[in-house]
Amino acid sequence: MSQQNPIFIPGPTNLPDRLRLAMHVQSQDHRSKNFIDTFAPALEEAKKVFGTIDGKVLLFASSGTGGWEAAISNTLCARDRVLICRNGAFSHRWINLCQRHDLDVEIVEAPWGAAAPANAYEIALKADLSYKAVLVTHNETATGVRSNVAAVRQAMDNADSNALLMVDGVSSIASMEFRMDDWGVDIAVCGSQKGFMLATGMAILAISPKAIETMEHATLPRTFFDFNDMLKNNASGGFPYTPPLQLIYGLRESLKMLLEEGLENVYARHFRLAEGVRRAVTAWELRTVAHSSNIASDTVTAIYVPEGRDANELTDHANNAYGVSFGIGLGKLNGKAFRIGHLGSLTDVMVLSGLATIEMSMADLNYPITLGSGVATAQEYYRQTK
Amino acid sequence: MSQQNPIFIPGPTNLPDRLRLAMHVQSQDHRSKNFIDTFAPALEEAKKVFGTIDGKVLLFASSGTGGWEAAISNTLCARDRVLICRNGAFSHRWINLCQRHDLDVEIVEAPWGAAAPANAYEIALKADLSYKAVLVTHNETATGVRSNVAAVRQAMDNADSNALLMVDGVSSIASMEFRMDDWGVDIAVCGSQKGFMLATGMAILAISPKAIETMEHATLPRTFFDFNDMLKNNASGGFPYTPPLQLIYGLRESLKMLLEEGLENVYARHFRLAEGVRRAVTAWELRTVAHSSNIASDTVTAIYVPEGRDANELTDHANNAYGVSFGIGLGKLNGKAFRIGHLGSLTDVMVLSGLATIEMSMADLNYPITLGSGVATAQEYYRQTK
Amino acid sequence: MSQQNPIFIPGPTNLPDRLRLAMHVQSQDHRSKNFIDTFAPALEEAKKVFGTIDGKVLLFASSGTGGWEAAISNTLCARDRVLICRNGAFSHRWINLCQRHDLDVEIVEAPWGAAAPANAYEIALKADLSYKAVLVTHNETATGVRSNVAAVRQAMDNADSNALLMVDGVSSIASMEFRMDDWGVDIAVCGSQKGFMLATGMAILAISPKAIETMEHATLPRTFFDFNDMLKNNASGGFPYTPPLQLIYGLRESLKMLLEEGLENVYARHFRLAEGVRRAVTAWELRTVAHSSNIASDTVTAIYVPEGRDANELTDHANNAYGVSFGIGLGKLNGKAFRIGHLGSLTDVMVLSGLATIEMSMADLNYPITLGSGVATAQEYYRQTK
Amino acid sequence: MSQQNPIFIPGPTNLPDRLRLAMHVQSQDHRSKNFIDTFAPALEEAKKVFGTIDGKVLLFASSGTGGWEAAISNTLCARDRVLICRNGAFSHRWINLCQRHDLDVEIVEAPWGAAAPANAYEIALKADLSYKAVLVTHNETATGVRSNVAAVRQAMDNADSNALLMVDGVSSIASMEFRMDDWGVDIAVCGSQKGFMLATGMAILAISPKAIETMEHATLPRTFFDFNDMLKNNASGGFPYTPPLQLIYGLRESLKMLLEEGLENVYARHFRLAEGVRRAVTAWELRTVAHSSNIASDTVTAIYVPEGRDANELTDHANNAYGVSFGIGLGKLNGKAFRIGHLGSLTDVMVLSGLATIEMSMADLNYPITLGSGVATAQEYYRQTK
Repeated sequence: MSQQNPIFIPGPTNLPDRLRLAMHVQSQDHRSKNFIDTFAPALEEAKKVFGTIDGKVLLFASSGTGGWEAAISNTLCARDRVLICRNGAFSHRWINLCQRHDLDVEIVEAPWGAAAPANAYEIALKADLSYKAVLVTHNETATGVRSNVAAVRQAMDNADSNALLMVDGVSSIASMEFRMDDWGVDIAVCGSQKGFMLATGMAILAISPKAIETMEHATLPRTFFDFNDMLKNNASGGFPYTPPLQLIYGLRESLKMLLEEGLENVYARHFRLAEGVRRAVTAWELRTVAHSSNIASDTVTAIYVPEGRDANELTDHANNAYGVSFGIGLGKLNGKAFRIGHLGSLTDVMVLSGLATIEMSMADLNYPITLGSGVATAQEYYRQTK
Repeated sequence: MSQQNPIFIPGPTNLPDRLRLAMHVQSQDHRSKNFIDTFAPALEEAKKVFGTIDGKVLLFASSGTGGWEAAISNTLCARDRVLICRNGAFSHRWINLCQRHDLDVEIVEAPWGAAAPANAYEIALKADLSYKAVLVTHNETATGVRSNVAAVRQAMDNADSNALLMVDGVSSIASMEFRMDDWGVDIAVCGSQKGFMLATGMAILAISPKAIETMEHATLPRTFFDFNDMLKNNASGGFPYTPPLQLIYGLRESLKMLLEEGLENVYARHFRLAEGVRRAVTAWELRTVAHSSNIASDTVTAIYVPEGRDANELTDHANNAYGVSFGIGLGKLNGKAFRIGHLGSLTDVMVLSGLATIEMSMADLNYPITLGSGVATAQEYYRQTK
Repeated sequence: MSQQNPIFIPGPTNLPDRLRLAMHVQSQDHRSKNFIDTFAPALEEAKKVFGTIDGKVLLFASSGTGGWEAAISNTLCARDRVLICRNGAFSHRWINLCQRHDLDVEIVEAPWGAAAPANAYEIALKADLSYKAVLVTHNETATGVRSNVAAVRQAMDNADSNALLMVDGVSSIASMEFRMDDWGVDIAVCGSQKGFMLATGMAILAISPKAIETMEHATLPRTFFDFNDMLKNNASGGFPYTPPLQLIYGLRESLKMLLEEGLENVYARHFRLAEGVRRAVTAWELRTVAHSSNIASDTVTAIYVPEGRDANELTDHANNAYGVSFGIGLGKLNGKAFRIGHLGSLTDVMVLSGLATIEMSMADLNYPITLGSGVATAQEYYRQTK
Repeated sequence: MSQQNPIFIPGPTNLPDRLRLAMHVQSQDHRSKNFIDTFAPALEEAKKVFGTIDGKVLLFASSGTGGWEAAISNTLCARDRVLICRNGAFSHRWINLCQRHDLDVEIVEAPWGAAAPANAYEIALKADLSYKAVLVTHNETATGVRSNVAAVRQAMDNADSNALLMVDGVSSIASMEFRMDDWGVDIAVCGSQKGFMLATGMAILAISPKAIETMEHATLPRTFFDFNDMLKNNASGGFPYTPPLQLIYGLRESLKMLLEEGLENVYARHFRLAEGVRRAVTAWELRTVAHSSNIASDTVTAIYVPEGRDANELTDHANNAYGVSFGIGLGKLNGKAFRIGHLGSLTDVMVLSGLATIEMSMADLNYPITLGSGVATAQEYYRQTK
């Protein structure tokens, strides 16, 4: 357990010391003043990261998957129609979850590598006014693609849709710009282990007043993830059951870090790190899964290996030979692409070590790669933008 | 955050240094060998604590409440009949959860302070063979009462019940004897933050082969808590989504600690600590909520304050004046009783500091108490049994 | 390493979480801005704890012994005459150190249990004007006796002594009032592991302008402990060699803690904790080594065991049977007395657990002790003074 | 305090998590079994790293400077003649220390960048048989030069010298081969914060039976650093004063790490990392301070900047622009050279990030450097030798 190299998976992300220490707290009485004084302000500050003034932030011990389940089970009834785009493995999983909870799911299919097409949403919404929820994955972690949530909202408005807009922002929120109120998002889902730079184990949601209203008529069963229980208890500083204390102490400090740096600076840092990676990919003459740079994610880059290569062999080799973890390709990208996570507590210097590692790994496997080529390109970009 | 006094709430419990350090790990790739080498053995070792050879252990980022929900939603269908005893606030909550998930709940009412009456279970089960599940709270954390799970199993057998036996062992497992296989338990629910001495945030369940079989026909919706997804992924060392890494690393070390001490010794230590507390209560001429010592819990003691006193004033005072947390009375015991948690990483010396504190607090509030009386009684017991 | 019980030795003291975390820093470049921004303010703030405006604070990786050596080797020459009282094992050791560094040591002998007699100092100083340094142990850790430093200064003034006044405040500074400037102290020696609540490994000294002046003519050899090298490097934020970084980060936070609580409150807390212990000793019908309560130390109480008893057997038993460490008797008190350390990060509740433990241990060894008697007396005092 | 980039100074080195946790222990009674069980075996195991069976290992809270002082003050008398080579800033400092302790120091001058010349030692030793000690710096941290200790021993033997051989191995031991017994070393000095990968604050010495014998006749004053006090106390598992507990717990774990990896593998890893750095220097068309590769240190590389450049500007820039610390040039190399530390808990991947950083920094300052050139050369070497 003497890990020293950074990890380059798109979450969990490298824990900065400041947050490791913040989470390293002794057990507290969750009914004590100390906890109450920590918890309520953390909920309030977290709203800034979601870009909401009107909404509420809720925390559940769980993962992003739990956040998805919470979103739908608190606001929908069995057989409700929902509209969602599938453009990667994570949107695929959310669809599966909706189906398992007996929703009537209409899928907008898009290529893996494309963003969610707002116009296709608009067509579907105009064709059928019964949609109760529109779901979109802000950042497809499997493909490294960012979708335009504001455009989806516009599509809904164009179609006079009264549906709730639910957004999976698990791998974008706290790393990439997110404007819940401006974009008319009703439920945004995030996790502790990505841009918040915390340990895994907590879903972080923000819900709009409209979502809260809808909640009262939603009949899908839920207790652990119940928004109402949570809101009622939160109102007096409490939790409906034992809260994930360590993560909440961590969240308070994470928010301090993010707000001290400034959210705009956090986003700019993620763009800069990502752009260095993208330029390295170009230098390697490889291709990102993202179809174009204007939809490329700033938190993760998925990269096709050349035809005939096995991407898993590459990531395994990087791990075995150099002790560095990269993301594997997921779903139908498995074996065809690998992913470089570049989010959270990360510096340009750390990214360069990742690029250097994957270059060595590619060379080891006889990829037609020039050692140092991607590194040099990224170095040039980083030094010009420092 | 410089807490030094132990806490005496019945969970979360005082984190021993060894486990704080074990959880203080940097992020890992959850697909890496290191994690896989940690996770699978932890699941296997945990079976010993549940007393099962045939069952499987499952971990979910969540709390005990999540564990309850997982238990029923993976094995039951809407409108299934379940039988459960209500003898405290936690069994009350589980009942409520069952109702919210649309189960048909038959309640065996018992006084708060009594154990779950096996004979009442037997009568109910004989009267109606349609029960799909029998639920019992092994240790009512609200009242400090231990129920006889083996007797409930016997009642089921006497009634030829084919129902699943589900047990809430949140505040007993890893502190008090639990024999899943011997008692014919199908699902046992525990949490990380009690006898396992870990941070809050993880439900730990064990499920029997029969529960696994039943799972396939259960139609209550679930995804995050889905046993099947979990079992399939666990089979290859993985997790269906991002796992609570830090808690899993902690669990591995917790199991080492428990098994190094020896489970029998762990149980004996809890009995000894509890017995000292109970003798102090007698010395104070107060009354435990538990009706008799043979059903008294070894992890928590609920104690009535004298008529006319407000128990919350007492616990508030202990906190404000001495910086020590005790458990408040829950549900209908609120204001009437307080609780001393004595589980997890605790020593006789620590317990004595708790007893000394509550004595001072009682004296401060003019309770008719002799300072040192409970302490001396416990001292005598501890030194004779050391 | 799962220690949970507090320790009751007079240093090292129980580390509060806040300081454990502050010391848990990754390696830093000691020439970096981060370290420089930490170090200089820490030196400045530390002056408040010593009660000096005119002096300088110096830090050396070492122990209190190293601090003693630094004090004499930087200011004296071989064969210089120094005057010092021996009233316990620590003053004895300082004498030995002076002798080994070839000083001409005049010893004022006092009973172990008495304070350093200012009048005897005065007589000696008047009889011989050649003393270059007067040494006094502010708090004899071996006997639990506080000496009157101001009175020794008065004695010096009465004798028109031009000697340096050097004070061993290892177990008093940061716990008991210390007024370097007011008392005319030239060198005060402390350590990180006592009232500063840090790990062991750093001597903390304060030196007066007069000591600095004297330094230039001092010919005892020294390099590691050289004040001049240290002062010159400190002036630009640096250190003459690799500094004990973790302890310096810890010191910064320790000073924040001490000054947030307020030094007067820190001293009052130590008095209150000590007074509870002293009253327990009276209740046990035992005798403190300190001859009278007005010279009793507020950081450690040395207690005679009854005639015929072996104090080491008692402390060993407390450790083996209950896992609690108390101080053994040192030097000629070995076997005859044991010590309860009550300094640093400690609460009344923790002290009560120590008293309860030693009561049980005495009972186990058939001391004529009433269980709970000392505890009850301390409880009564603590609750009345809370 | 959220440092994430590695540091590349030649000590303190990057703390691996395993050792940070090992040092993160609560205070212990240093007279307790737990400490005694830790301390003695650590001393014993440490002998393996020094390459001694006959010697003893001693620990002092201090730095390497303290270790030097301990070495001479325990074995020599004022005016004793000692022979030492000056080939860099650290040997220069040791000379200064000897002079301040009133030794009669004969200096073998060598160019900064050359190794200590064994033949010059031999000539001096043959010319004057009165030398009591021969001192040599195994690894000149200022120049990145390794001297041949075995050759110095041979020179002594050739001259029939009966002097003690004292070696500064502060930045070599535990990283580069050291064979105390084989090389006839009498005192070897190391520090916790280099190859042992611990926090700063502890000197680690090994002394031969001959050194121990000599000790009895040595009259230089010392108490804190007294070998005799230390040996006597160590013999019963104790320490002559409060020991640096946290560092000793850390040392035990550090030794486990080193011996698990295998010392030969540790040395090979340091060579490999160093060789990558050296090849990068060649690719940059820069010059190491070390005159030839066969005397190049495997723990630190000192590199001349081109004529007319200010090396401090470069290291400052790397720090300010990229948050990475490199070593500055020391003594007469200040401004002319910078240093890359590559010792301790370090991987090839980390080294590459350092090389990438210094390349960017050089480019930023308009050095005639090709970005990626050094990185690519090191990548090629690392991947071929992985």
